[in-house]
Amino acid sequence: MRAARLHAYRQPLALDEVDEPRVEGPLDVVVRIGAAGLCRTDLHIQEGQWAEKSQVKLPYTPGHENAGWVHEVGSAVTNVAVGDTVIVHPYISCGLCRPCRAGDDMHCLNGSFPGINRDGGFADFLLTSARSVVKLDPSLEPKAIAALADAGLTAIHAVKKAIPVLGPGTRAVVIGAGGLGHIGIQCLKEMTSAEIIVVDPSEPALVLAGELGADRTVRVDGNHVETVRELTDGLGAEAIIDFVGENGAVNDGVAMIRDGGFYYVIGYGENIDIPTIDVISREISFIGNLVGTYNDLEDLMTLTAQGKVSLHTATYPLDAINDAMADLHAGRLRGRGILIPAEA
Amino acid sequence: MRAARLHAYRQPLALDEVDEPRVEGPLDVVVRIGAAGLCRTDLHIQEGQWAEKSQVKLPYTPGHENAGWVHEVGSAVTNVAVGDTVIVHPYISCGLCRPCRAGDDMHCLNGSFPGINRDGGFADFLLTSARSVVKLDPSLEPKAIAALADAGLTAIHAVKKAIPVLGPGTRAVVIGAGGLGHIGIQCLKEMTSAEIIVVDPSEPALVLAGELGADRTVRVDGNHVETVRELTDGLGAEAIIDFVGENGAVNDGVAMIRDGGFYYVIGYGENIDIPTIDVISREISFIGNLVGTYNDLEDLMTLTAQGKVSLHTATYPLDAINDAMADLHAGRLRGRGILIPAEA
Amino acid sequence: MRAARLHAYRQPLALDEVDEPRVEGPLDVVVRIGAAGLCRTDLHIQEGQWAEKSQVKLPYTPGHENAGWVHEVGSAVTNVAVGDTVIVHPYISCGLCRPCRAGDDMHCLNGSFPGINRDGGFADFLLTSARSVVKLDPSLEPKAIAALADAGLTAIHAVKKAIPVLGPGTRAVVIGAGGLGHIGIQCLKEMTSAEIIVVDPSEPALVLAGELGADRTVRVDGNHVETVRELTDGLGAEAIIDFVGENGAVNDGVAMIRDGGFYYVIGYGENIDIPTIDVISREISFIGNLVGTYNDLEDLMTLTAQGKVSLHTATYPLDAINDAMADLHAGRLRGRGILIPAEA
Amino acid sequence: MRAARLHAYRQPLALDEVDEPRVEGPLDVVVRIGAAGLCRTDLHIQEGQWAEKSQVKLPYTPGHENAGWVHEVGSAVTNVAVGDTVIVHPYISCGLCRPCRAGDDMHCLNGSFPGINRDGGFADFLLTSARSVVKLDPSLEPKAIAALADAGLTAIHAVKKAIPVLGPGTRAVVIGAGGLGHIGIQCLKEMTSAEIIVVDPSEPALVLAGELGADRTVRVDGNHVETVRELTDGLGAEAIIDFVGENGAVNDGVAMIRDGGFYYVIGYGENIDIPTIDVISREISFIGNLVGTYNDLEDLMTLTAQGKVSLHTATYPLDAINDAMADLHAGRLRGRGILIPAEA
Repeated sequence: MRAARLHAYRQPLALDEVDEPRVEGPLDVVVRIGAAGLCRTDLHIQEGQWAEKSQVKLPYTPGHENAGWVHEVGSAVTNVAVGDTVIVHPYISCGLCRPCRAGDDMHCLNGSFPGINRDGGFADFLLTSARSVVKLDPSLEPKAIAALADAGLTAIHAVKKAIPVLGPGTRAVVIGAGGLGHIGIQCLKEMTSAEIIVVDPSEPALVLAGELGADRTVRVDGNHVETVRELTDGLGAEAIIDFVGENGAVNDGVAMIRDGGFYYVIGYGENIDIPTIDVISREISFIGNLVGTYNDLEDLMTLTAQGKVSLHTATYPLDAINDAMADLHAGRLRGRGILIPAEA
Repeated sequence: MRAARLHAYRQPLALDEVDEPRVEGPLDVVVRIGAAGLCRTDLHIQEGQWAEKSQVKLPYTPGHENAGWVHEVGSAVTNVAVGDTVIVHPYISCGLCRPCRAGDDMHCLNGSFPGINRDGGFADFLLTSARSVVKLDPSLEPKAIAALADAGLTAIHAVKKAIPVLGPGTRAVVIGAGGLGHIGIQCLKEMTSAEIIVVDPSEPALVLAGELGADRTVRVDGNHVETVRELTDGLGAEAIIDFVGENGAVNDGVAMIRDGGFYYVIGYGENIDIPTIDVISREISFIGNLVGTYNDLEDLMTLTAQGKVSLHTATYPLDAINDAMADLHAGRLRGRGILIPAEA
Repeated sequence: MRAARLHAYRQPLALDEVDEPRVEGPLDVVVRIGAAGLCRTDLHIQEGQWAEKSQVKLPYTPGHENAGWVHEVGSAVTNVAVGDTVIVHPYISCGLCRPCRAGDDMHCLNGSFPGINRDGGFADFLLTSARSVVKLDPSLEPKAIAALADAGLTAIHAVKKAIPVLGPGTRAVVIGAGGLGHIGIQCLKEMTSAEIIVVDPSEPALVLAGELGADRTVRVDGNHVETVRELTDGLGAEAIIDFVGENGAVNDGVAMIRDGGFYYVIGYGENIDIPTIDVISREISFIGNLVGTYNDLEDLMTLTAQGKVSLHTATYPLDAINDAMADLHAGRLRGRGILIPAEA
Repeated sequence: MRAARLHAYRQPLALDEVDEPRVEGPLDVVVRIGAAGLCRTDLHIQEGQWAEKSQVKLPYTPGHENAGWVHEVGSAVTNVAVGDTVIVHPYISCGLCRPCRAGDDMHCLNGSFPGINRDGGFADFLLTSARSVVKLDPSLEPKAIAALADAGLTAIHAVKKAIPVLGPGTRAVVIGAGGLGHIGIQCLKEMTSAEIIVVDPSEPALVLAGELGADRTVRVDGNHVETVRELTDGLGAEAIIDFVGENGAVNDGVAMIRDGGFYYVIGYGENIDIPTIDVISREISFIGNLVGTYNDLEDLMTLTAQGKVSLHTATYPLDAINDAMADLHAGRLRGRGILIPAEA
């Protein structure tokens, strides 16, 4: 089969011919990839930022945001059958360790992460597990929903954590209305009663944010922190949902948070660097967020099926992977870039 | 009356003769000070670290950790009467704003903080409010419990936030077994089922920690982070309770936290400075803590009355305030320093 | 002033001339009544059902759902001024007991309940407290919002408790789309992502429910329990929100609840009567609900100002109180009945 | 192998010779039974109370509280190996449905319950699943801990739900200090800071309760409800933990609950029968409890290993099953009865 593989850091991916993965364990599932989302993390992988953390051996196949059709199943798989349309939770968890038994899949003590530390979905087929596939209505097209497997999943996971602090009269400031943020806005709209204030440097992104439910949009213009403080009675917002985490977003966000408020860290790149005296005298908290659970993904698929969340994407054939990565890097993508190895 | 007042930053306090405070509003309460705890924050105030934040006008009287006897009450005060023994919650809250109506006293939108931004308790009398006094058993001596008004209150407040993550089999790492920490350990013991690991550079502090309920004590010796990781299956602890917040405590604490864990910030001095990629890939959270609520203080007085929390203190007469501050600064104090303007 | 007073149980109210209430304590507030909602509880009071619980001495003035304009304030009142438009929280709480300090107004240990155990709002003026008035935009008409003070408050209070169990893909069954229910539906729509199934015997009520956001409506027709079970995959709903509590509603509700689910008791009249073996083998829970907190009322006013909650009412002059009660008793009222002592 | 089987309701069990169970699926585990606890539910099964609910086909083998050693494992089992000492979670859950993915094992949509609706542990061997076995220290004797698999698990599950309402100064009333209750008392002591009041008709049970941590013990003597109300400031307790659920326990418990409080239903037999007007005017809640999760069982084993929970038991050989049941029925058992098919 074809696989877009990374042979060396800071080099383009190569479209290689490799062996198809096969089911080995009783809970294994092989998925024929219908669509694979392209993530800023894939750029960071190519740049080598994850080399030490992931310890992955090159060459390997990135791609951690996948959807397609079940191609082969292990002997103990009962939740999907060959031919089923599925979206693939990005993590393979064991199901038996304590975090798994608590529903906290991402902290599985025996897990692996296709596309990060083993072969992922920029290929014709992907080896995953019964625990990682969510069965979908057969009418759904993988390319219409693949981006929910990671971008959307991360967004809903963070928003769910924020629900208890986002009652009537509160404000949520969303930093970044891009691939993750535009889903986060819709989740906030559906799952909380907060007023949603979206901050982004791009006017088209803000227009999209408004269409998706933002109550207020604020352009990053040097005065945006002050503008947000004015929109929040001079006190700041109860929640900052930061989908950017670089280029000054964190300092901006800290300045926009209300005393007693919560900062949800999702985007990454720069440091949180804050005096502990500010953390205690303002009693503010920073909440980390790592993708989401299997049930989070199911929830998101439910919201999508109900028409409450929709995606904005741009598609590329698999062999245009490097063009897609260049477009993402250059900021030429609107919404999420999606690779299409195969049509149904 | 006598009041130990700060006339200039970086100067000793002066013992001045000033007018006694009098009740003006219907909810005002004047307390005759029986004991006033000395806090590291008083040193920071003297050094000028709070000058900008508090906007207090010099000269003024510090002292935010007070207990004594009710001396005069306003017309609408129903919860205490003249002569009652009371401990004084450090904050004066309005009772009518939204945070007050939610029980979140410390974020009152109209509050003031005696000892920080108005006259405090290093004096014979203190003006406070009916909302800030907890009535005690008349047999209690103010000097025996004054330190619970701030040090203890802050400790229990943070521990209460940690309860949901500290079930059986979990570990709480307490950084610092001093004035706050030695109360925090007792609260953790009483309110959670976590194994308690205490980290401190002082051997006597660790001995005290062990007597108060620590399951493990670890001396700060350069290898202490590694030791804690070994004591936590190589994975780190579910909760770090940091009563220090300076001299490298934060970096140590971050290295000792388990993926998915929580860092409770209480001590202050240095910065949290951490890459957002670590916050998200490890899904760790930092929780700010600011003193505690009125009900937290009541809870702590209950635990004290039940014999579950006890204090270690050293007492000074009011006119020895500068000696006490010098002892605190030099690390010569064991437990909490307490000033005694008056005996019952 | 005029007051509609109950002189004897099971007798009509009499429109009496009585003294105006005056401010006595520093936190007292006298409100000129602009509108007073009529509640099924007023019928129950007239019937004598509350006589023993309330211990009220006849004659007295019912009316616990009030809005109007501030007429006189005590010396320590800072949150409202004479002339302000206000809605009146139904309970007078002390602000100093432990439940008050936790924001749990309704369980105040020193409270009183105008309209239940002291004179209420079926009159020209009402004596209440600074702690019980929410200041409103002066453009708001009391008659447009008075019903939120009790019916709406109770509905939002119960819905807020249900938020944690009403994520995407869950179902909430609302029993009763009347005075409380039609507000509950709107709160569920705004504050949760559950699918909302409304059960009611009245076709017009179901039509209104659909307009207000119900996803499914089910007529009480003998087969309605079965219908709801079919609409919930044969498993029942995660939450039953019962605004009726009589005429068989409880048995119906229990049969419609999913294993592990929650039953929110709001309406009253009949008994919960269920074998404990069913409670444990199905692990179902029954959650009591008593009006709501001051902050709940503020939240509801926020949702109303944002256009997310709207009321359906029918108005009567004060001297038509007995007509209004007869209409309510006979089921001739659509939405909430509102008495209007005075126009602005 | 030997199995004590029920051939007809209201008849003694028969000790039959039957085929040993064998591993069939990849996650199957066969456990050699070292100890099987006897539960009041086994009496109820024999009486036919569960016949309709369980739909079990006679003859079959009861016994849902098991511990022993792993005898055979399926091909995909990774968490235990042959020879391991294990305690057996009473439910077999699928691991793939939504409740399982949330850690909510007992509500698995595809589960089965050995001893209730299929063959249980009153036998030499038991067929269960990798998902149902907790690996123990090899030094632990099955008979010392088997009763934790159901009695203890149910107790800790209920206590964990009560933690948020049982802070300092609160009271928990434990109804019943028998097989479940004596573990519940220890869990309350370790996991909450509530004062523990234990109510039981048996003086020896109350003595044991006191040794295990009860702060107050109250004999059921007709005046016990009044006694408990006096011990709770005339207001009742924040939590009632009812391990009995019959013989008037529920009415007693309702009379002992504080307004705003919670009633945890664990024991069963009689009905909850309460006017909804009391549920709403007192805002009390009833919380169902069904055994516990896998992680609850792990937590309990941790507390046991730490010496914080200990069991009181009486042992019988397997062929004395009917004697054991007679002793339980007659109230001759102190602590939990344990059947011992085999020694290590």
